[in-house]
Amino acid sequence: MMSFTAAVADQRFVLEHVVRIGELAATERFAAASPDVVDAVLEGVGQFASGEWAPLNREGDTVGAKWSPDGVHMPASFVKAYKEYVEGGWGTIGVPEDFGGQGLPFAIQTAVLDTLGSANMGFALCPTLTVGAIEALIHHGSPEQQALYLPHLATGDWTGTMNLTEPQAGSDVGALRATAKPLGDGKWSIKGTKIYISFGDHDMADNIVHLVLARTPDAPAGTRGISLFLVPKFRLNEEGTPGDFNDVRVVSIEHKMGLHASPTCVLSFGDHDDCVGELIGAEHAGMRAMFTMMNNARLNVGLQGVQIAEGATQKAVGYALERVQSARAGSPNKEAVRIVDHPDVRRMLLRMKAQTQAARALVYYAAGQVDRAGLGDGAAKNRLEVVTPLAKAHGTDIGNEVASLGIQVHGGMGYVEETGAAQYFRDARITPIYEGTNGIQAADLVGRKLALDNGGAFAALVSDMRAEAEHPELVALIDAVDAIARRLATADADDKLAASYPFLTMTSVAVCGWLMEREGRHATGDEEFAVVKRASVRFYLDQIVPEAHGLKAAATASAEVLYAVPAEAFAA
Amino acid sequence: MMSFTAAVADQRFVLEHVVRIGELAATERFAAASPDVVDAVLEGVGQFASGEWAPLNREGDTVGAKWSPDGVHMPASFVKAYKEYVEGGWGTIGVPEDFGGQGLPFAIQTAVLDTLGSANMGFALCPTLTVGAIEALIHHGSPEQQALYLPHLATGDWTGTMNLTEPQAGSDVGALRATAKPLGDGKWSIKGTKIYISFGDHDMADNIVHLVLARTPDAPAGTRGISLFLVPKFRLNEEGTPGDFNDVRVVSIEHKMGLHASPTCVLSFGDHDDCVGELIGAEHAGMRAMFTMMNNARLNVGLQGVQIAEGATQKAVGYALERVQSARAGSPNKEAVRIVDHPDVRRMLLRMKAQTQAARALVYYAAGQVDRAGLGDGAAKNRLEVVTPLAKAHGTDIGNEVASLGIQVHGGMGYVEETGAAQYFRDARITPIYEGTNGIQAADLVGRKLALDNGGAFAALVSDMRAEAEHPELVALIDAVDAIARRLATADADDKLAASYPFLTMTSVAVCGWLMEREGRHATGDEEFAVVKRASVRFYLDQIVPEAHGLKAAATASAEVLYAVPAEAFAA
Repeated sequence: MMSFTAAVADQRFVLEHVVRIGELAATERFAAASPDVVDAVLEGVGQFASGEWAPLNREGDTVGAKWSPDGVHMPASFVKAYKEYVEGGWGTIGVPEDFGGQGLPFAIQTAVLDTLGSANMGFALCPTLTVGAIEALIHHGSPEQQALYLPHLATGDWTGTMNLTEPQAGSDVGALRATAKPLGDGKWSIKGTKIYISFGDHDMADNIVHLVLARTPDAPAGTRGISLFLVPKFRLNEEGTPGDFNDVRVVSIEHKMGLHASPTCVLSFGDHDDCVGELIGAEHAGMRAMFTMMNNARLNVGLQGVQIAEGATQKAVGYALERVQSARAGSPNKEAVRIVDHPDVRRMLLRMKAQTQAARALVYYAAGQVDRAGLGDGAAKNRLEVVTPLAKAHGTDIGNEVASLGIQVHGGMGYVEETGAAQYFRDARITPIYEGTNGIQAADLVGRKLALDNGGAFAALVSDMRAEAEHPELVALIDAVDAIARRLATADADDKLAASYPFLTMTSVAVCGWLMEREGRHATGDEEFAVVKRASVRFYLDQIVPEAHGLKAAATASAEVLYAVPAEAFAA
Repeated sequence: MMSFTAAVADQRFVLEHVVRIGELAATERFAAASPDVVDAVLEGVGQFASGEWAPLNREGDTVGAKWSPDGVHMPASFVKAYKEYVEGGWGTIGVPEDFGGQGLPFAIQTAVLDTLGSANMGFALCPTLTVGAIEALIHHGSPEQQALYLPHLATGDWTGTMNLTEPQAGSDVGALRATAKPLGDGKWSIKGTKIYISFGDHDMADNIVHLVLARTPDAPAGTRGISLFLVPKFRLNEEGTPGDFNDVRVVSIEHKMGLHASPTCVLSFGDHDDCVGELIGAEHAGMRAMFTMMNNARLNVGLQGVQIAEGATQKAVGYALERVQSARAGSPNKEAVRIVDHPDVRRMLLRMKAQTQAARALVYYAAGQVDRAGLGDGAAKNRLEVVTPLAKAHGTDIGNEVASLGIQVHGGMGYVEETGAAQYFRDARITPIYEGTNGIQAADLVGRKLALDNGGAFAALVSDMRAEAEHPELVALIDAVDAIARRLATADADDKLAASYPFLTMTSVAVCGWLMEREGRHATGDEEFAVVKRASVRFYLDQIVPEAHGLKAAATASAEVLYAVPAEAFAA
């Protein structure tokens, strides 16, 4: 069986033609992102991930994180491999140089996380969350907070978490009840229970920096009364090193279907009234800070779809190249062949390849907009807003579809856990749920994003796609997306939401088709990579884009049929 | 949380309008299937399943079947609940009266298994396999074999298994190597290893009747040299009761992603050269006997898709009716509502309902053809041949889709195992694989089934659908299916197979749409069931049927793009 190999060729290609990394490297801020540096990063993390992290993927699943009264313990192999990650400097790639980082574009950091997560998605979630904490501190932290915490978060020496959800407050963040009371010295006493906190506790780092949403006294109800707090697991000494325990207890971890390497914690803050936090940004401005953290987190979850798709595809290809079964139909030769030679298996494999590449294009494209927006490009900021829900939802939908195809290619072996195909499928299933369910992403698209700049932000995307698209099915899809977007802009709330998910999928496929077609134009020559790329692009445009046309009816349907059924009658 | 309730109203409705059970009950053979008997069976098994089997579903998953050197042990609760199943006579429903059964139609037996498996799919697989053994013995067994074995298999007092697969012989059954050597007394010495044998061993019944494919000495290669043998776990004494151990050992059971209640066994026959079998039917006629067994098994696996979809839908509806989260968008009322009131959640629930009902219509329709074919209706025999791959593949595809939506409705709770939504998702994933992968079903459709009766069998289905269909999208889909079928009839083998899966899905949706539209015409009145049914039908015709149009491009694509990639390049 083939082991994991980082998809360096595709990453480099997408960075060049989709992200247009050359344009970024031409700016002063990202001058470090020269082709040789990018190559060294992609190759280096590829070697590290395939050598150190991929071999632990199954142990993460079968052993996983374990709760004990004194905290969560990771397998010893993970503790060691995490230290190697820190020492390799892989956490510092995208962090500005001022804060101890290498100042490379977010798109490069995306490629690094892509590789780490393709090797071991559960493990890679830990650095992924740290990235969210870094973003929040860069944009909303005080200089003191930045100086104390960012260098450690950059290396991964300390890790970060995001604490939003409470039992009664899931998608409805505004319903949260955790409290922060002023201690008089500028600090706050934090109290409350948070659930679903990924890597909320573990023993791989010297400290854990919890970013916690809570309410201050007399705060307004709902999201307008939420503030963001920095709550370390261990308070810092005067030298800035971890000192006293800060009364953050891990009550339990969830028994999940997958992603067992990632402890999903119930955290209790201030059980002994001794949990101290610092405000990040202004009081009551927590939602804005959270969105900074969430937006990139959403891209990084979309990226997990790419990670799973890449890993699952490689495993399925490896099996299909080895497993011999049945002669090829219609062949005069009655010898059994490798299953890769059977048309329906090839259809599955090429679909997996095409979808994986499409998801990578979509997510990296979005990541490139983060960098452009950071350079002050207002159009890119709007573009990022529009494509973020697509990257999160469609990227994870693809991850799930490809993981399922990966099982199917394996036949009965795919259902047996030892094979590893099932783990991708189980791990993938959380991604359409967390960081805002895909339904929430669709609501965000038809709500805030279609309305952005009076519809101008979405129209600009349509216009860019239209200017470049050539394949008739793609052109027709872009036209359909445009027409439906105009229609939804004036639809009532229920109709908008009823159509939101199919519309999100159509739009996502249009964007993927647009970027894949562009990739196809650049994939010239006879080398294997170009040959596969051209076939993937053809398959995507000829077969996957037309499927999205099939969603037109659903994306233009009203909500009326949904409410023709009284709620209780669903149980009839 | 709602507990499981059998879908009796839908079952009765589908039996009446899709199966047209009244026509069957009007025949002498099925005269027993009067409306009151049918009602009593549906209600009775519903009470039994919800009371006795549904509560064990999670234990089947968490404890499951356990291997030990002396055989496989089921949880004690399963042993008890299985005895109650036997005593209730639920196994005897579809078995002819001559063999100790109740002689009711296969369609009624299908409804019984539907309910049992919706309550506990892993458990229900045991009786499901016994049905296959019964079918094989009814059609191919000698009178002595029938007399000795059928009454016990009918009650479920003894259970049955199907032994086809070997490590090198999966989809390619003809590659099997197990041997049978004549012992001189008309019996045979069986030797070989079989894998993936569901309920190959357990402690719930007094005997296990293995039906085993093996090669006799000098048998021709491939499928033409295969014979079917009856191999009991315990040989029968003169009184016909289980006696000496027959040297059938369970070597191990698989660690699967789901379906843990069903032990998937590696069986070793004749390790000590002391395994005795009897030939079923003629020597070298094993494939035909196997197909008898497989065809109904395929319908019953399609039915597992319905089972999972029903269970997953009920659980999701229960959660959506309880979980309160966020105010309804666009509502002046800012109170949080039950999530069933949010449009996208309703979309998921109505889709789950519509797909579940569609799959039930498809599978029950096929089951009705079994009964009609059994009455000597040649057209029904052909129809059964055509719809069997659809029922198996599309039924299980729907089961997987609905189980995934079920998780999504639950949000984060869906990923936590205690909720139970994840179990449906894990259990479902084997169904597109076993009893012939769905890819094999698609190959069967475009190969043998399109060619049947020179295309007449398929054309008759198209003609029946066309005569009744009214919805323009459905009419257009039937036209498309017809046109593509004609095109595929003359396509070369690779092109046929490349298009087979999307064509199977299109055809399946056309058949489901046809049957659902018919159901809609009969769903009059204001009672809850009729209201939900009409909404499901509208959703199916207005939104799901159009999706199938999106597959046209794939169903008319050639295989050329698939082979534009050299096999090894998939690993590039």
